[in-house]
Amino acid sequence: MKVAFIGLGQMGHGMAHNLLQAGNQLTVWNRSREKGNDLVSAGAKLANSPADAVRDAEVAFTMLADDAALEASVFGEHGLMQALPKGAVHVSASTISVALSGRMNHAHREHGQHYLAAPVFGRPDAAQAARLVVVVAGAREAIERCQPLFSVIGQQTFVMGDEPTMANVVKLGGNFLIGSVIESVGEAVALVRKYGVDPRQFVDLLTGTLFAAPVYKIYGGLIVDQKFDPAGFQLKLGLKDVRLALAAGESMNVPLPVASLIRDQALAAIANGLGDKDWSSLSQMAAHNAGLK
Amino acid sequence: MKVAFIGLGQMGHGMAHNLLQAGNQLTVWNRSREKGNDLVSAGAKLANSPADAVRDAEVAFTMLADDAALEASVFGEHGLMQALPKGAVHVSASTISVALSGRMNHAHREHGQHYLAAPVFGRPDAAQAARLVVVVAGAREAIERCQPLFSVIGQQTFVMGDEPTMANVVKLGGNFLIGSVIESVGEAVALVRKYGVDPRQFVDLLTGTLFAAPVYKIYGGLIVDQKFDPAGFQLKLGLKDVRLALAAGESMNVPLPVASLIRDQALAAIANGLGDKDWSSLSQMAAHNAGLK
Amino acid sequence: MKVAFIGLGQMGHGMAHNLLQAGNQLTVWNRSREKGNDLVSAGAKLANSPADAVRDAEVAFTMLADDAALEASVFGEHGLMQALPKGAVHVSASTISVALSGRMNHAHREHGQHYLAAPVFGRPDAAQAARLVVVVAGAREAIERCQPLFSVIGQQTFVMGDEPTMANVVKLGGNFLIGSVIESVGEAVALVRKYGVDPRQFVDLLTGTLFAAPVYKIYGGLIVDQKFDPAGFQLKLGLKDVRLALAAGESMNVPLPVASLIRDQALAAIANGLGDKDWSSLSQMAAHNAGLK
Amino acid sequence: MKVAFIGLGQMGHGMAHNLLQAGNQLTVWNRSREKGNDLVSAGAKLANSPADAVRDAEVAFTMLADDAALEASVFGEHGLMQALPKGAVHVSASTISVALSGRMNHAHREHGQHYLAAPVFGRPDAAQAARLVVVVAGAREAIERCQPLFSVIGQQTFVMGDEPTMANVVKLGGNFLIGSVIESVGEAVALVRKYGVDPRQFVDLLTGTLFAAPVYKIYGGLIVDQKFDPAGFQLKLGLKDVRLALAAGESMNVPLPVASLIRDQALAAIANGLGDKDWSSLSQMAAHNAGLK
Repeated sequence: MKVAFIGLGQMGHGMAHNLLQAGNQLTVWNRSREKGNDLVSAGAKLANSPADAVRDAEVAFTMLADDAALEASVFGEHGLMQALPKGAVHVSASTISVALSGRMNHAHREHGQHYLAAPVFGRPDAAQAARLVVVVAGAREAIERCQPLFSVIGQQTFVMGDEPTMANVVKLGGNFLIGSVIESVGEAVALVRKYGVDPRQFVDLLTGTLFAAPVYKIYGGLIVDQKFDPAGFQLKLGLKDVRLALAAGESMNVPLPVASLIRDQALAAIANGLGDKDWSSLSQMAAHNAGLK
Repeated sequence: MKVAFIGLGQMGHGMAHNLLQAGNQLTVWNRSREKGNDLVSAGAKLANSPADAVRDAEVAFTMLADDAALEASVFGEHGLMQALPKGAVHVSASTISVALSGRMNHAHREHGQHYLAAPVFGRPDAAQAARLVVVVAGAREAIERCQPLFSVIGQQTFVMGDEPTMANVVKLGGNFLIGSVIESVGEAVALVRKYGVDPRQFVDLLTGTLFAAPVYKIYGGLIVDQKFDPAGFQLKLGLKDVRLALAAGESMNVPLPVASLIRDQALAAIANGLGDKDWSSLSQMAAHNAGLK
Repeated sequence: MKVAFIGLGQMGHGMAHNLLQAGNQLTVWNRSREKGNDLVSAGAKLANSPADAVRDAEVAFTMLADDAALEASVFGEHGLMQALPKGAVHVSASTISVALSGRMNHAHREHGQHYLAAPVFGRPDAAQAARLVVVVAGAREAIERCQPLFSVIGQQTFVMGDEPTMANVVKLGGNFLIGSVIESVGEAVALVRKYGVDPRQFVDLLTGTLFAAPVYKIYGGLIVDQKFDPAGFQLKLGLKDVRLALAAGESMNVPLPVASLIRDQALAAIANGLGDKDWSSLSQMAAHNAGLK
Repeated sequence: MKVAFIGLGQMGHGMAHNLLQAGNQLTVWNRSREKGNDLVSAGAKLANSPADAVRDAEVAFTMLADDAALEASVFGEHGLMQALPKGAVHVSASTISVALSGRMNHAHREHGQHYLAAPVFGRPDAAQAARLVVVVAGAREAIERCQPLFSVIGQQTFVMGDEPTMANVVKLGGNFLIGSVIESVGEAVALVRKYGVDPRQFVDLLTGTLFAAPVYKIYGGLIVDQKFDPAGFQLKLGLKDVRLALAAGESMNVPLPVASLIRDQALAAIANGLGDKDWSSLSQMAAHNAGLK
């Protein structure tokens, strides 16, 4: 298939690579061009703008850092909205606000194009290994058309419904739950440490039984080891996602008190220098507040 | 071994039954005597008081509903403290306050007896099936002596350290984390429902990937089905445990903001009639606060 | 002085009226023109756009409902930014985001104009009675020039500093504290009511002693009387202000946990139909959560 | 009148002194006897135990630090319960739990004695100056009998109802509201400081207008001056009172989320060494969490 890929960060690069490997005709664009060099060597074309990238595309993926970057690539000068062929599909894989997703959906419909929200779960290594989990929502027919591509970048696809925002809110809900695990495990670990319990034993007990899930193993391990550097996912990005969840709640009048609490802890953590550390360093606040060094 | 068992509720009965089946000489006591009838038919002796029950015991288990019940059985009139032979072990399996556990430990030492805190994870069906997880702390030598009994009631034993309170705080930390899962999933489900997402699909996605743990499957399922009756574990008992976690934090100056939040939601839920429902009905507050019927 | 006034809502109308009464040459603009009729009868000119209104002004006031309305009047088509004479002063009296205030300050400087943030404390009756409290920040020289006008609309002027945003954040901080009073008094009243205490007596005791301030008298009275209709200030507007305070905190990494809590209660209140009631109806959530009818 | 006074701490001493000055026959008791020396010089009798102190009393005041101290003086060996004459009144002025107050009420009734809860608002200087605010509840007839004494120790008496616990819960509600002021002002001050606003000006603005109450002047001033030493009222005692409010809420199923938040901030403050500082030092947590030194 003729595929465009906008955004070659840690996540996007791995996804684009897999799409290319699978035999698709790939055109890529990234703000810093050099990120695309190896893909070009492997057969991809490098475009000068998002608009250039999508001009002949059947499907255009976007995978960008935040609302602002995506908005610029879609609605900005040389953005993809003006150039994507009628009938083609924009697959938005970024973790973005529900509001922007709704706005893109509306605009694409006006332009006779299709729009799918397809955020993914997984860290950069999963993107590279084609082991992402793809959560998609939008018109069923467009989803079916893109399914072969989703199979190339991920291990599983979950279809959430007809409204693209459904996929976005599911992604935000999921990320909020990851934050909840970090915050609650951070508190529990601070508690047991004050009683002299070895936190590794505590986490092993949890993950050996009721809490035997990757999320507790990954973050529980990071919290116990206090290994926050280098960051797998920065605290400030974690805060961004929690804010998007709060905003999604706000526009539908859904209070999310645990998310509010995580937001406040994250702001305190950032104010105290942890913004670039791994998201799991949020647990440092619980430790500090318990008087642990 | 000569074993006494005090407290034949849903949990204790299953545990006592398994200890008897394994060939131990069992003497039981329960406030309402009839709960012990079938154990007596199967060969156990029925005592008239905790003191009577433990008079010849090598190991005495207690499994009672709360601090008050345990305190009465231990320190009250005809309590076990006065009757347990020197050198025998009291294994306290109830979920109780760290404070009471510390007090019992102290008193048993004064009486020349041993004391282990050995709270368990698992619901009544796990108690019956000998599939509990036993979390134990106290003198290593006493733990070793009781290990054959732990193997009879549970599938796994985790040793936390020399201080009995370590096991109690680990149990409370674990229960607090269960509460955190209920609260956070309740909020996330309310969020996605407001966007039209099928909550079952949302929970399936979670438990099919990062959150693939029993705790998300069990409570996620109950929340989605809104099946709060009959209660596997009543909300008011869940609140009790969260309060014990908060109290454990309080005496060591450990703030637990997520636990505070659960406590407040639980009080609101109880004030609105949910006290006897399953603990997972806490999620009704998130639904109500989002304007969901 | 030649004064323009943009925005003749409940607050703006009273302020404009007082400026006119004091002998200033007044030109007004409002989206719905009829709001200016009586001012025109009293000698004001009615403009067709914000740009028209400010074309000859020495000082231009804006008093609009929110960021969006103000942004349109300032930066939009026929907005005042393009028309305000060099050297003239824009006095922004609306309660708006710190971010928008900073952006206007920057733009006015580029246009050779002056910009003051001068939000006010007081309800519509205080605006009419010229009894507002004016909180102003910006270049000292511009403040001095406008002082005679502030004296006409308010009873007191507080100068906060050279940076206009200082006045905005002070206003937002103040409104957040009003919200804190409503929430905390709502909780305390729910508590004492459950013990059979007459809430009026409780509030009288408070406001007769340590808490003898207008904010406790006004909101305490409304909470006790449960008189939420007609709204002096709607709950949804209260939420808007709390969100602005949270946003101001967010951009400087200042967690405001009490504000987060108010936000969540307000969302729940709105989800349950209280959005158009008085802000003090937030207390209904505390009552509901305590099981009070 | 024949008056006994149990507890000559900073508060109690001033109150006892005023009762003596007014011409009552005073017998006092305090754990450390020397605190009563000057009262003895002025004509009071010094008793050897609470029981001795109340043996001939018509009215017995207690003013002790906490539940434990009061419980010992009332129900303990040589406690007043056994010695107070039938028909005499026990006036409990301490800030204590609703639960203990209810228990004393019950016991006094069984002993044919009267019991009033009469907690007071005011710091030690107000106790000395007879400017306390007395909040009383209990049988009307007993209140009337004691009114002359209340007039001697305070400037105002507020009668809350027939049930003594009503006065206790009102006192706890009031103290909770003081804590709310400290926490919310602490947050607001952190916010405006991050924007360069002089916090003194901010507090002056507040207390010059809507927030013109002693509670904002006193605590706002302490927060701005960061003058937490010597403590007028220690943070750890503030936490004690917030816990009593939470407990009062708990037994009636009243969630108090702002109180929970104060509790958690206070625990963090104590864990970080502020327990003996003034209660207003709670604001240091908000400052710290905003990255302010």
